[in-house]
Amino acid sequence: MSEALRAAPQWHVSQWFGAAGPVTLESLRGRVVVLEAFQMLCPGCVSHGLPQAQRVRDTFPEDRVAVVGLHTVFEHHQAMTPTALEAFIHEYRIGFPVGVDESGDGPIPRTMRAYAMQGTPTLVLIDAAGMLRGQSFGQVSDLALGARIATLLAEAGAERSA
Amino acid sequence: MSEALRAAPQWHVSQWFGAAGPVTLESLRGRVVVLEAFQMLCPGCVSHGLPQAQRVRDTFPEDRVAVVGLHTVFEHHQAMTPTALEAFIHEYRIGFPVGVDESGDGPIPRTMRAYAMQGTPTLVLIDAAGMLRGQSFGQVSDLALGARIATLLAEAGAERSA
Amino acid sequence: MSEALRAAPQWHVSQWFGAAGPVTLESLRGRVVVLEAFQMLCPGCVSHGLPQAQRVRDTFPEDRVAVVGLHTVFEHHQAMTPTALEAFIHEYRIGFPVGVDESGDGPIPRTMRAYAMQGTPTLVLIDAAGMLRGQSFGQVSDLALGARIATLLAEAGAERSA
Amino acid sequence: MSEALRAAPQWHVSQWFGAAGPVTLESLRGRVVVLEAFQMLCPGCVSHGLPQAQRVRDTFPEDRVAVVGLHTVFEHHQAMTPTALEAFIHEYRIGFPVGVDESGDGPIPRTMRAYAMQGTPTLVLIDAAGMLRGQSFGQVSDLALGARIATLLAEAGAERSA
Repeated sequence: MSEALRAAPQWHVSQWFGAAGPVTLESLRGRVVVLEAFQMLCPGCVSHGLPQAQRVRDTFPEDRVAVVGLHTVFEHHQAMTPTALEAFIHEYRIGFPVGVDESGDGPIPRTMRAYAMQGTPTLVLIDAAGMLRGQSFGQVSDLALGARIATLLAEAGAERSA
Repeated sequence: MSEALRAAPQWHVSQWFGAAGPVTLESLRGRVVVLEAFQMLCPGCVSHGLPQAQRVRDTFPEDRVAVVGLHTVFEHHQAMTPTALEAFIHEYRIGFPVGVDESGDGPIPRTMRAYAMQGTPTLVLIDAAGMLRGQSFGQVSDLALGARIATLLAEAGAERSA
Repeated sequence: MSEALRAAPQWHVSQWFGAAGPVTLESLRGRVVVLEAFQMLCPGCVSHGLPQAQRVRDTFPEDRVAVVGLHTVFEHHQAMTPTALEAFIHEYRIGFPVGVDESGDGPIPRTMRAYAMQGTPTLVLIDAAGMLRGQSFGQVSDLALGARIATLLAEAGAERSA
Repeated sequence: MSEALRAAPQWHVSQWFGAAGPVTLESLRGRVVVLEAFQMLCPGCVSHGLPQAQRVRDTFPEDRVAVVGLHTVFEHHQAMTPTALEAFIHEYRIGFPVGVDESGDGPIPRTMRAYAMQGTPTLVLIDAAGMLRGQSFGQVSDLALGARIATLLAEAGAERSA
């Protein structure tokens, strides 16, 4: 069995919160990346997606698993501004960097379009080599997600020792 | 035992959502009123206060119990604008009228100050005669709240038949 | 509108736990009674019915609202013996008296049959005068239950002052 | 870094439910084994341990991950008999084999003693080679458990291809 892997598309971010500088895919090479795409006024993101991303942050070591939020606003643009997002991040105590997906032509922002996301929340898994390894719209169980992350970590470890 | 009752302070609302016109305390006379004061970026309001207010709306008949939301923004004013609130109400499917508490001198809005609320969420109970009968900051249990509402309803009924 | 009330049927209990002596309906006259009929191996009783009965116990004063459990075993009789029930009450820290419904002819015990209960959990409400005022099989919301109890309490109070 | 592994102690089971015959550690060689030690009247087992074991059963393929329950009764022996356990398994729809830990000298059953378990629920992880790889008393998060299982699966896969 063989899977045709493709590199994770570039991120287009206009502004970062909770990061010293831009967080690029290149800078995360060597770590498994969990990207949580959300909108601050999306109920499923608030009740499920973001708490799960925070649990991932609290469970895995930061030098092996990177957790990154991406604010992919595709509706209510006037309401979900960067100013509003900053207050949201503060109030919900989001403990990982969050980027603002850059607006493109039309309502859908650029990174969201590049990944062909269907909505929010969307969870994206990228392996230590920068390959796109999973993308789920809606709810993912913690058991399945923990297993998926550990599998990518095991691959990364095997690569290193090879 | 006797309780010195005071009339519920007037509401100062600059804008209503989900209502044909202004919702005044006078217009609600004869009904028990559950007022849910909240901020759209307050986690406890989103996870507890507003869902509970919605359950009250779904449990009691509308002609006997009025449920009203009040957006009492006392922090992050730039983030929690009426435009943002409107999107929030839409996304969270809030099924009762919501007023925007009018800004006053300083960060605390006028109605919030008149009721001396300590924060959000705050649940206020007003009886059918317009008297202030309860005010709780933080979580209230459904059992206790259901009992309190029914007690006020029973009083209103007794008054009517007297 | 008028409701034809009937007296709550007698309880037939072979053994009591958590009570000094037999708990009779007569001895509870003057108090609102919440009767929780359950089976210790019924998942809905363990996850919903019994915790709710405990919340009622913790919310209302004991001299006005009585909470009583009734072990109505109608299946797996060999498994749900009084010995097993006693361990269950201990482990789940049930904080109200529990009676063992007396076995009758056939699998259904006597009190369960007298009340024509359809299964477990069943919640029964009896007013301060001993009248049967409500019976629900399955889940009841805390808001609705709190309201129902308070309504019966208000009636009892009105009676007393009349 | 190296970990001194030891073989998972033998299971001593007097009776199996939900299995065609005895489930031995040897017969599970080649699969990762999740052993859930519980007591049917232990609230934490009912609310947390057993539902988690069931989620493991539903998440991972049966030919790679075996889920086995072990009824380790160390208190209330009269209440938690095999007859009662059988009814419990039926009512809670436990979808994996459950063994009755054989009684030993004193209240603690034999397998529980061999594994030096401190109480229930206890979750035991055994790798595909039959080595004891983890044992936790109390709650384990789904994320951490999913990761742990996947790590053992990755090891088993690496071994096979080597």
